[in-house]
Amino acid sequence: MSEKNSLQDAYKQTKFQVNGHGPRYIQVLKEAFDALDGQLESEMYGKGELIEAFQQNMARILGKEATVFFPSGTMAQQIAMRIWCDRKGVKKVAYHPLCHLEIHEENGLKELHQIESVLLAEKDRVIEFEDVASLSEDVSCVLLELPQREIGGQLPEYETLVKISDYCKEKGIKLHLDGARLFEILPYYEKTADEVCSLFDSVYISFYKGIGGIAGAILAGDQDFIEESKVWKRRHGGDLISLYPYYLSADYYFEQRSGKMGQYYDQARELASYYNECYGVSTLPEVPVSNMFHVHFAAPKEQMEQLLIETCQETGIGLSGHIREVTGTTSYFEVSIGDGYGIIPSEDLKAAIRLLDAKMKKSIR
Amino acid sequence: MSEKNSLQDAYKQTKFQVNGHGPRYIQVLKEAFDALDGQLESEMYGKGELIEAFQQNMARILGKEATVFFPSGTMAQQIAMRIWCDRKGVKKVAYHPLCHLEIHEENGLKELHQIESVLLAEKDRVIEFEDVASLSEDVSCVLLELPQREIGGQLPEYETLVKISDYCKEKGIKLHLDGARLFEILPYYEKTADEVCSLFDSVYISFYKGIGGIAGAILAGDQDFIEESKVWKRRHGGDLISLYPYYLSADYYFEQRSGKMGQYYDQARELASYYNECYGVSTLPEVPVSNMFHVHFAAPKEQMEQLLIETCQETGIGLSGHIREVTGTTSYFEVSIGDGYGIIPSEDLKAAIRLLDAKMKKSIR
Repeated sequence: MSEKNSLQDAYKQTKFQVNGHGPRYIQVLKEAFDALDGQLESEMYGKGELIEAFQQNMARILGKEATVFFPSGTMAQQIAMRIWCDRKGVKKVAYHPLCHLEIHEENGLKELHQIESVLLAEKDRVIEFEDVASLSEDVSCVLLELPQREIGGQLPEYETLVKISDYCKEKGIKLHLDGARLFEILPYYEKTADEVCSLFDSVYISFYKGIGGIAGAILAGDQDFIEESKVWKRRHGGDLISLYPYYLSADYYFEQRSGKMGQYYDQARELASYYNECYGVSTLPEVPVSNMFHVHFAAPKEQMEQLLIETCQETGIGLSGHIREVTGTTSYFEVSIGDGYGIIPSEDLKAAIRLLDAKMKKSIR
Repeated sequence: MSEKNSLQDAYKQTKFQVNGHGPRYIQVLKEAFDALDGQLESEMYGKGELIEAFQQNMARILGKEATVFFPSGTMAQQIAMRIWCDRKGVKKVAYHPLCHLEIHEENGLKELHQIESVLLAEKDRVIEFEDVASLSEDVSCVLLELPQREIGGQLPEYETLVKISDYCKEKGIKLHLDGARLFEILPYYEKTADEVCSLFDSVYISFYKGIGGIAGAILAGDQDFIEESKVWKRRHGGDLISLYPYYLSADYYFEQRSGKMGQYYDQARELASYYNECYGVSTLPEVPVSNMFHVHFAAPKEQMEQLLIETCQETGIGLSGHIREVTGTTSYFEVSIGDGYGIIPSEDLKAAIRLLDAKMKKSIR
């Protein structure tokens, strides 16, 4: 068994786990469906009362004319890019170097849509207004991911978003929001979802991050944009006869959790403050701006794996089931706060982090 | 409310319905999951014990090295075509004019993969050996759909399949099976699934036709072909974090129904014989070769709609919820036998068809 699996296993065997809403058991589906009448009827290829009601509700919340449910954000976002590129006749879009489309989709944007990417900003910081304003090539769309997941979930200032939005409008560039974690950032910005979305021409949101659903995404925009996206959805093989296992559970968990993002945000800041008191440990961002952040260690991955396994086993509290290499001598893991955090006895959690601190001091000093 | 909706509604309100396994209620999902332990763990992006066990089981049944579960057949088959075209360096595939890829996918094969189609045979008959042997252009792949759904589910002779398979091998053309209804044709051919699949380089099967699952598909082939398909699956946006709502229910209903295809086939022949005794009615094929067939009427769609609504209302038996125009004076509907047929009292069903016969005689003579 690999080291990675050992940490995963040790994490899974703990009584309490810091990340998310609990294990991704099939109980997540069963719970959502226990609450539903078995005689409700599936949609057929996107048509039906249940899916249309869900899509209309999401359109209202996001302040857009229309939305459509997709099996995945990968599909939804590539399609958004394709539509904007086709409309302008320019097969280029601009986004962050660590954008999901650039690093997690096997180059689907280029392989399926022949769209080139222009990378904005350096890898280790968010996109600023100047990055967009100094674009040397014409692009059809700028994509902003809020928060920027791969650098700990950082955010630009809200004013920056407004400036970028105004600039793109003026230049005839569409602005798309990768809002996989849109609801998670609203407490920091102190804005509603529709206020944020009003800055963007198209928006994607996910249901299995902070919301804790099973899978699936919503794409939102003007009516004609959404109608066009449905044609591409069929082309991609995403127009399933029945998507109800996803959107009905998305609806269920959205109702449960969209109002709890302020709590997760507060808890993320609390937990980050504990980590920042540890020896050789720092969080990115130092003060989280959503329910997520990264924890960086001044120790190599293999060493941290061992310390984290021990912490799991000695305290019954799982701080993380993963650890990734940054350089040969540093490593990090991602924290994402959900319902799991609140049920950990506060003193036990602090004790677990104190234990990690002691182990760090002993091992790497 | 449109006429079409009226027939659908009248059909839904009947006590007994001829087609399929009952309404597509969410109970279909609930039933499959009621049987499962809530603590079973979701796969993560295609990796996990449950999905791997399911894929291995399907590989064994289909007699292929490997399989991968896809959210849809649309996605699976485009990807199969893409891989075969990339390998040969020829962006052309050959299939029937009423192939799913040609008429139901918004031209995804061309729009996403730049693959051209060469149409084999006339629309109203199945592909014969001579159609393949007389191909005037080089293609990377020939796709056969068994049974040919859009013409009532017709089949070529098994010997024809063997000849086509041998010919394609000799010519360096890959042979792909659109086996959405593969299990449904095994009783007619008197072959096992792996015997049929051995004639093909790649195979797609569906879980929501005769099997009656919720959605989803399996693509089967050699190990390296399947590994390559997973990369494309991610590009298409089909590599969801969790597909378990589909493959776990597919597994459940496959176990229940894959052994009942002989019964459905017998029942389809029985029902077709009843229709062929009606005035102005004939089935295609005259004697079904699977659980499906088409029923053709010597009357226009609007008139048949009315007669079918009356039959629903007067007998409590739904013969079809749909009727489609063929020409301005003829129409048809599709029959697909599942568990629903067997629970209709035989005398009541015959009486319903006699009533339709009487109505036909009265209306169109």
